[in-house]
Amino acid sequence: MRGFAFRSTVEEAVAWIEAVLPSFEKLPTEVVDLSDAAARVLAADVVSGVDVPSFARSMMDGYALRADETQGATPYNRLTLRVVGTCLPGTPFAGRVETGEAVRIMTGAPLPDGADAVLPVENTDHDAEQIGALDQVSVGKHVGQIGEDLRRGDVVRRAGATLRPQDLGVFSSMGCGRVTVVRRPRVRILITGNELLPAGTPPDGYRIADANGPMLTALVERDGGEPIMPGIVRDDLAALREALLEPADVVLVSGGSSVGQEDHVPRLLAEHGELAIHGIAMRPSSPTGLGRIGDRLVCLLPGNPVSCLCAYDFFAGRAIRVLAGRSPDWPYRRVRVRLSRKLVSTVGRVDYARVIVRDQEAEPLAISGASILSSTTRADGFVIIPADSEGYPPGADVDVLLYG
Amino acid sequence: MRGFAFRSTVEEAVAWIEAVLPSFEKLPTEVVDLSDAAARVLAADVVSGVDVPSFARSMMDGYALRADETQGATPYNRLTLRVVGTCLPGTPFAGRVETGEAVRIMTGAPLPDGADAVLPVENTDHDAEQIGALDQVSVGKHVGQIGEDLRRGDVVRRAGATLRPQDLGVFSSMGCGRVTVVRRPRVRILITGNELLPAGTPPDGYRIADANGPMLTALVERDGGEPIMPGIVRDDLAALREALLEPADVVLVSGGSSVGQEDHVPRLLAEHGELAIHGIAMRPSSPTGLGRIGDRLVCLLPGNPVSCLCAYDFFAGRAIRVLAGRSPDWPYRRVRVRLSRKLVSTVGRVDYARVIVRDQEAEPLAISGASILSSTTRADGFVIIPADSEGYPPGADVDVLLYG
Repeated sequence: MRGFAFRSTVEEAVAWIEAVLPSFEKLPTEVVDLSDAAARVLAADVVSGVDVPSFARSMMDGYALRADETQGATPYNRLTLRVVGTCLPGTPFAGRVETGEAVRIMTGAPLPDGADAVLPVENTDHDAEQIGALDQVSVGKHVGQIGEDLRRGDVVRRAGATLRPQDLGVFSSMGCGRVTVVRRPRVRILITGNELLPAGTPPDGYRIADANGPMLTALVERDGGEPIMPGIVRDDLAALREALLEPADVVLVSGGSSVGQEDHVPRLLAEHGELAIHGIAMRPSSPTGLGRIGDRLVCLLPGNPVSCLCAYDFFAGRAIRVLAGRSPDWPYRRVRVRLSRKLVSTVGRVDYARVIVRDQEAEPLAISGASILSSTTRADGFVIIPADSEGYPPGADVDVLLYG
Repeated sequence: MRGFAFRSTVEEAVAWIEAVLPSFEKLPTEVVDLSDAAARVLAADVVSGVDVPSFARSMMDGYALRADETQGATPYNRLTLRVVGTCLPGTPFAGRVETGEAVRIMTGAPLPDGADAVLPVENTDHDAEQIGALDQVSVGKHVGQIGEDLRRGDVVRRAGATLRPQDLGVFSSMGCGRVTVVRRPRVRILITGNELLPAGTPPDGYRIADANGPMLTALVERDGGEPIMPGIVRDDLAALREALLEPADVVLVSGGSSVGQEDHVPRLLAEHGELAIHGIAMRPSSPTGLGRIGDRLVCLLPGNPVSCLCAYDFFAGRAIRVLAGRSPDWPYRRVRVRLSRKLVSTVGRVDYARVIVRDQEAEPLAISGASILSSTTRADGFVIIPADSEGYPPGADVDVLLYG
């Protein structure tokens, strides 16, 4: 049992992640149905194989006709045309529109042969047999042309785009029912600690329920990863070694990350892979470690729940988002508000200070130890105090990152 | 076939939704496991039934001892104590710490009887048998007290709160493995149109694939609803009537919402329930309808994909979010940028203008008809031009709501 002899800076830890991520084998892609594609990240450009629309169609409910036959029509100069048929979406008019004729047409229906414009119903008076045109239209008016929405060969969305609801609509309309997306990184969550009971179990004597498992699972899902949660791992070398070597893209280890005799994981990582960062100049979360084993990125997160959340958000979440094809940026909204009380820090370390935001003011939480997880449920967000700062006086403007 | 004789304003349509939502039977709640609770909305306060921690515990790796025995200790005045045992998380020290003694203790381990403070390992020199205290600690130092995180009876999160990852952690640590949340509103999506092929099918002659089904499904999921998608509904009275009467909290009908002979749904709604709003002074989406049938809210969305998206976002999405316990606000981030070109509108209607945002400038899309769904995939977001505005000149500052 000893303290950390050396601590990396937060910047060094982030730089290590940024340096190794590209060397990780590019994540495989997968093909998913449109119904599973919302919010996924495209792994390849999506190119239209068809013209949309593939036929000229009406943009209005009205009458398909020859535009030149409406020239001069006004409510005071009503021009009469004979209605020779109806044209519905999917059901074209079989004949041809000749001089003096009009075909009743619905929005989306194919424009009949012979017609070159649509006169909206609002600009007619009509009965079943004939219409009076009350306005003139020009050639092509209210007609959607072939390829007007998309042309064959158009790139509709590029690789890297996160799919929005309307993207799925466009893909569907061009007959693309499946898309190639970045596979979610598989994130194995190893919860260690012999004192731990399964999540949600009432405390029993000196044994307490795992808080980090449910939290990390939700964080990984938020960041686009696929959590794999094998249950609580016994705190012994053999069990931990085996768990570390199971298939995964990222391994998160909660607990046993420090430098005590019982902290097996850093040693295992150093023996079987690389323990690149161990000990970071920040509070909480200083016993955080980063490394890799085989082709897995491994993040050693402190068992203290607040430290675990903080270390996840600074390092692991960032890596998972990048592997998932997303932005590395904090997934929290940022607001700039006044500090109601001073916020003290120590030069040489980054502080993660939980605050309550009320009436455009940030109030630092009084009780905020690394083990007080309720400090993160009472808080609305946090302020990051950089390593070169001693903190902020009351009234200072600070950036708050708002939780969820 | 006729035009709309009367159009409601957007404000009237929103006001109708706001007025009827409270009269809808309150959605049932449901109890879910923590593993399914992320991002759900609490339907009842969550109150802690236990003290967390339920025992005094060490906050550091170090030595549990009597604080008064460290008084005066410095690196130059090393005070020696005998190590009489070890205390691990979940594994208490069986004995009692007496005068002159210390017990090796790990973070999270229960404080042994007799001890009242923890001296961090960094402030000792030590071997297996004894330590030299190099600093003094006061009573209670580095000890987490019973109930320090949560007291029995504390309200941890209130009804209405959206659950964040750390909330699940806290619930777990207090032994709460299931929570009562607002049930997702069941949203039945009825896609009408005999010309439609199933989503993702290549266009075939005058038949086109359903674009609105995949889009609406993703929108409903985004807004906290549970989409029910029975497939394309045949455009005849009997099939539509039957589909409208199936169980649901909200029914979205895509297509057949206008005033043509083939637009059965408004008539059905008026006959079997209430067609409160039909025709709205906006572009696109003017053929939107709102009403109810039994205890279902019914939204008639135009079949044109852009109109469908716009009408969903203005009206249906808002209602679904409220029923899901969320904020009615737009689920889009808002940025204020300069307009690169003029944006023209007509007094008397609200316009939904798609724009591309680049270099802090909003560029209105040239092709933006209601049927051009790709206008919403090319666009980064949209500007809402209110009914009393003729639009904006180039260089005007406008609010853009950014898609996803």
